[in-house]
Amino acid sequence: MVLEDVNFPEDVKELSIWDKKILADEIREYILDVVSKNGGHLASSLGVVELTIALHSCFDCPKDKIVWDVGHQTYAHKILTGRKEQMKNLRQFGGVAGFPRSSESEYDCFDAGHSSTSISVALGMARARDILNEKHKVIAVIGDGALTGGMALEALNDAGYSKSDLIVILNDNEMSISKNIGGLSSFLTKLRTKKFYTKSNISGKNLVRKIPFVGDKIVSIVVKIKRGIKQLIIPKMFFEDIGFRYLGPVDGHDIEKLESILNISKTLDGPVLIHVITKKGKGYKFAEEFPDKFHSTSKFDIETGEKLSKGGRDYSSVFGDKLVDLGYKDGKIVAITASMKDGTGLAKFAKEFPDRFFDIGIAEQHAVAMVAGMAKEGLKPVFPVYSSFLQRGYDQLIHDVCLQNLPVTICIDRAGIVGNDGETHQGVFDLSYLNTIPNMNIMAPKNYEELEKMLEFAVNFDSPVAIRYPRGKEDDYEFESCLDIEFGNGELIKQGKDVTICAIGKMVSYAKKAADILEKENISCEVINVRFLKPLDKDLIRNSALKTGVVYTIEDNSICGGLGSSVNDLLENESVKVYNIGYPDCFVKHGSVPEIEKEYGIDVDSIVLKIKNNIEGE
Amino acid sequence: MVLEDVNFPEDVKELSIWDKKILADEIREYILDVVSKNGGHLASSLGVVELTIALHSCFDCPKDKIVWDVGHQTYAHKILTGRKEQMKNLRQFGGVAGFPRSSESEYDCFDAGHSSTSISVALGMARARDILNEKHKVIAVIGDGALTGGMALEALNDAGYSKSDLIVILNDNEMSISKNIGGLSSFLTKLRTKKFYTKSNISGKNLVRKIPFVGDKIVSIVVKIKRGIKQLIIPKMFFEDIGFRYLGPVDGHDIEKLESILNISKTLDGPVLIHVITKKGKGYKFAEEFPDKFHSTSKFDIETGEKLSKGGRDYSSVFGDKLVDLGYKDGKIVAITASMKDGTGLAKFAKEFPDRFFDIGIAEQHAVAMVAGMAKEGLKPVFPVYSSFLQRGYDQLIHDVCLQNLPVTICIDRAGIVGNDGETHQGVFDLSYLNTIPNMNIMAPKNYEELEKMLEFAVNFDSPVAIRYPRGKEDDYEFESCLDIEFGNGELIKQGKDVTICAIGKMVSYAKKAADILEKENISCEVINVRFLKPLDKDLIRNSALKTGVVYTIEDNSICGGLGSSVNDLLENESVKVYNIGYPDCFVKHGSVPEIEKEYGIDVDSIVLKIKNNIEGE
Repeated sequence: MVLEDVNFPEDVKELSIWDKKILADEIREYILDVVSKNGGHLASSLGVVELTIALHSCFDCPKDKIVWDVGHQTYAHKILTGRKEQMKNLRQFGGVAGFPRSSESEYDCFDAGHSSTSISVALGMARARDILNEKHKVIAVIGDGALTGGMALEALNDAGYSKSDLIVILNDNEMSISKNIGGLSSFLTKLRTKKFYTKSNISGKNLVRKIPFVGDKIVSIVVKIKRGIKQLIIPKMFFEDIGFRYLGPVDGHDIEKLESILNISKTLDGPVLIHVITKKGKGYKFAEEFPDKFHSTSKFDIETGEKLSKGGRDYSSVFGDKLVDLGYKDGKIVAITASMKDGTGLAKFAKEFPDRFFDIGIAEQHAVAMVAGMAKEGLKPVFPVYSSFLQRGYDQLIHDVCLQNLPVTICIDRAGIVGNDGETHQGVFDLSYLNTIPNMNIMAPKNYEELEKMLEFAVNFDSPVAIRYPRGKEDDYEFESCLDIEFGNGELIKQGKDVTICAIGKMVSYAKKAADILEKENISCEVINVRFLKPLDKDLIRNSALKTGVVYTIEDNSICGGLGSSVNDLLENESVKVYNIGYPDCFVKHGSVPEIEKEYGIDVDSIVLKIKNNIEGE
Repeated sequence: MVLEDVNFPEDVKELSIWDKKILADEIREYILDVVSKNGGHLASSLGVVELTIALHSCFDCPKDKIVWDVGHQTYAHKILTGRKEQMKNLRQFGGVAGFPRSSESEYDCFDAGHSSTSISVALGMARARDILNEKHKVIAVIGDGALTGGMALEALNDAGYSKSDLIVILNDNEMSISKNIGGLSSFLTKLRTKKFYTKSNISGKNLVRKIPFVGDKIVSIVVKIKRGIKQLIIPKMFFEDIGFRYLGPVDGHDIEKLESILNISKTLDGPVLIHVITKKGKGYKFAEEFPDKFHSTSKFDIETGEKLSKGGRDYSSVFGDKLVDLGYKDGKIVAITASMKDGTGLAKFAKEFPDRFFDIGIAEQHAVAMVAGMAKEGLKPVFPVYSSFLQRGYDQLIHDVCLQNLPVTICIDRAGIVGNDGETHQGVFDLSYLNTIPNMNIMAPKNYEELEKMLEFAVNFDSPVAIRYPRGKEDDYEFESCLDIEFGNGELIKQGKDVTICAIGKMVSYAKKAADILEKENISCEVINVRFLKPLDKDLIRNSALKTGVVYTIEDNSICGGLGSSVNDLLENESVKVYNIGYPDCFVKHGSVPEIEKEYGIDVDSIVLKIKNNIEGE
């Protein structure tokens, strides 16, 4: 057991290359064990084990800064930076986060969770270092998928021009190294990592050209990544042309070669890009075979690769199935995803209607403007996207969609609390940021059936519509079948006389459950399913409020700017008490959804208690 | 006079090439005349006169779709599409907009105002056309500056992969055509526009290579745009590598050559990029010499090029001067701009502290994450940015700045109503979208002095701060010198007993003026300068509200989610009437600031009237 005695980067540095290889195997085993029990991002973390060992062998963290893009590949990094034992509580409430968190360790130099941020952040750090006359290295580690994100390209452009000392590691896990190319690339790597090359200050491009024919061919074969929907198409010598020194490609599972190339990169001035080829899921058969399935996984059986949690329908699949139905009826319906086909439930639609399905890469800005163009010309585009990622398209929602009141359907998946992915992924701002946009219509369903009806309403409506729904399954409360959606109309779930509860989306069943409990204690609650945050059903809410005199708003969103604020605005000058229940103005950490709801008082029991205490206190 | 008889594209099509040249001169003269009187975007509009004539000669609008990026270069387009006479009211209240507006003409196929959207939109339109089995051309016209924006790069990547029929015109106005290169490129253009070339299906790259030596050299010299901070660095054959057919470069002031190349592009399948070289300000001496000065200009004297409006200090220059002061005292202060050095008042800082100044191009997402990296490492970054453009960095404010509570100062220029640029540029959402972000502190100054104090406070504060201030000059109301900023404290401007007015930023002087008028009518107003929207000075506002029983909130922001909503949330359960004055939930069109304020009842007279009427009505 090598891992047993390894706790910090200095321990890694002392190991022989053979022990490092054993360490890699042991780390893999450990990650596999933890993720099979806790769930998590397996494939990407398995892919960078050797790279992580090599990075901590060659650089001096926390003095040197490693900025991980997205950050879900940092499990090995966490294990090697003082959090080996704590990893057992990975992604659990109060445990280690699934992403870099500077509040957790000084080795996590910057928080992440969203894609394509690392080069921007690292460049800012490099510029800070230079202005403050400090001496250390700054390294960004970014995947090839993340490089399709516009902000990464903006940053590359700026970094290449800047001349700052900055190392960008392109973790390229889409391209497999076939044997013949692999051999040539090893040769090229060896060549480039020789000291004489880097010290003689000859640019890599020139040096390669000195090997007649072979050189150019290698560069062309190896650098030019095959075209694919999720990949940036990187032309030959793109990086050198924009101002980077290009090193590689190098086998990302060969620690010796990685160390060699990393050590060279340390001696170079200006921006350097190291092209590292890795395999997602490396070392675990099922993850290598199905990297998508094991990208983000729930608990599973290591032996069989089978998920332990029951499958079945969830909001995403209900959305996806309904969209297929609608797609058969209406040829104008098209579906767009920003690299989240499976996550958003679009796999069936993509299969049934390949000509009406578009995966445009990790590129939310482009996605929103593109669907605006589609809608303008008569299509009915539907863009399902995770709540926290839609934040990237906020300007485009205003400028490209809503300004012209274009009939685009945005389906906001993972709205509310997503759970174990934590604060970067919680979808608690969407009701607030959408609420501020003119012409935007905002809905949230209380269950699957209502989602289906809302989707049918949205694709046939002549203005922009956002429908937000949570991650996972509908609540177990069984509502009666509901009426079709009418524009701007809420739904009266239950009549009552003492208290009005206005709830939205997932919180409607909580409200109904709370009302049922309170009924037994002789507190009669009127329950309104808001349905439309915008336009709000003002009459329904005002009339109920004036009847009962007390209103509770409940939303799984920040209380700033969402349902609570809208109802406050509505009832400001009425003689009515209004209490807002929702997430406070803070970032909500990771944990299971029930744990978080309890923590913030948004579970049924807490709601009951609040209403009871208020009434008894009066 | 050719222009006299030209009103629509069909009139242009009928002209001889000689008449088209005369038409170009006449259009230039007309644009110059209008802009010298109304102000507007001169340099870019003068740069594309021939391109516009050629486009309308070769394509059939409105059937064919021309998507103009940014859209401030569309004056010639408007003149040639039925709006010749109306152009005299360009950018005036009720007159023709300074940007494409589909509500204005069917020839404006998509609204614009922000940068880098056109390829996304055009690709959406092209995909719609194909799915709906329609036959027409879709053309995006994008400048080289706009191509540094991440969303344009995201779109290029997707479009190159898509194989959709799409023509992208790269309007490259940074590179001048020197005589020798110009000659060669004419040759190249002629060569490429020959039918045999395009029909023989030989790729442009191969064909060029057939001209020994010269070919490669031309491509390398002409395509490789010189590196500059505002430019995308486009490597040789970048466009062909990502899947575009590349045509050009072509002299953008030679109508004949333009028509030739445009006609060829119509016969090609798949995505085509035409590289057009234009000169900003073409044809007007002063604009050619100082394209930046004449990018967006106020009224000027055509003979001398001198601006007619008085110069002097404005919010941007006050910010810039103060930042220079602070920069001398504190070497950790750095300034960042997204291609708006002059507009945001940073020119002096850039000159005084070139090593601490960064122009990172039109790339707001990157800018926000980059300053987060700087702040994390101990710098004090200050990022001035126009309100409506900061919308592009919304996710980065949440994910990269506020999640880690990093001390970044965002100075939001052009907040509130910008006036003649219209709805895409009105900064009426920032208070709302910033309000929803945890850890964000939001201020607005009532005048120059307070802006200086707020800036000094912000750069020394240990959390993110946003300071928003309007375009132009401070109001003429002369306040007494104010005390230094204390965190979270508002300022009591005037005591009163009948009504509380809570005003923010620019609206504080309006509130004071209104209070002074009402005083004479025996209505005693207490006036609060809110200073901090977040954290709100709850005690100050609540105590005053409880004293007077009536509160007016006044903000030059949307009433959804800004000051009004915050005060409503605060006073929800108090026995107080609250009235919110601000911009309603709609897009505010162009016009002068006073005209718009009057239209929406946010001028002093309207405020007085509202308060009086309410009191008399009770």
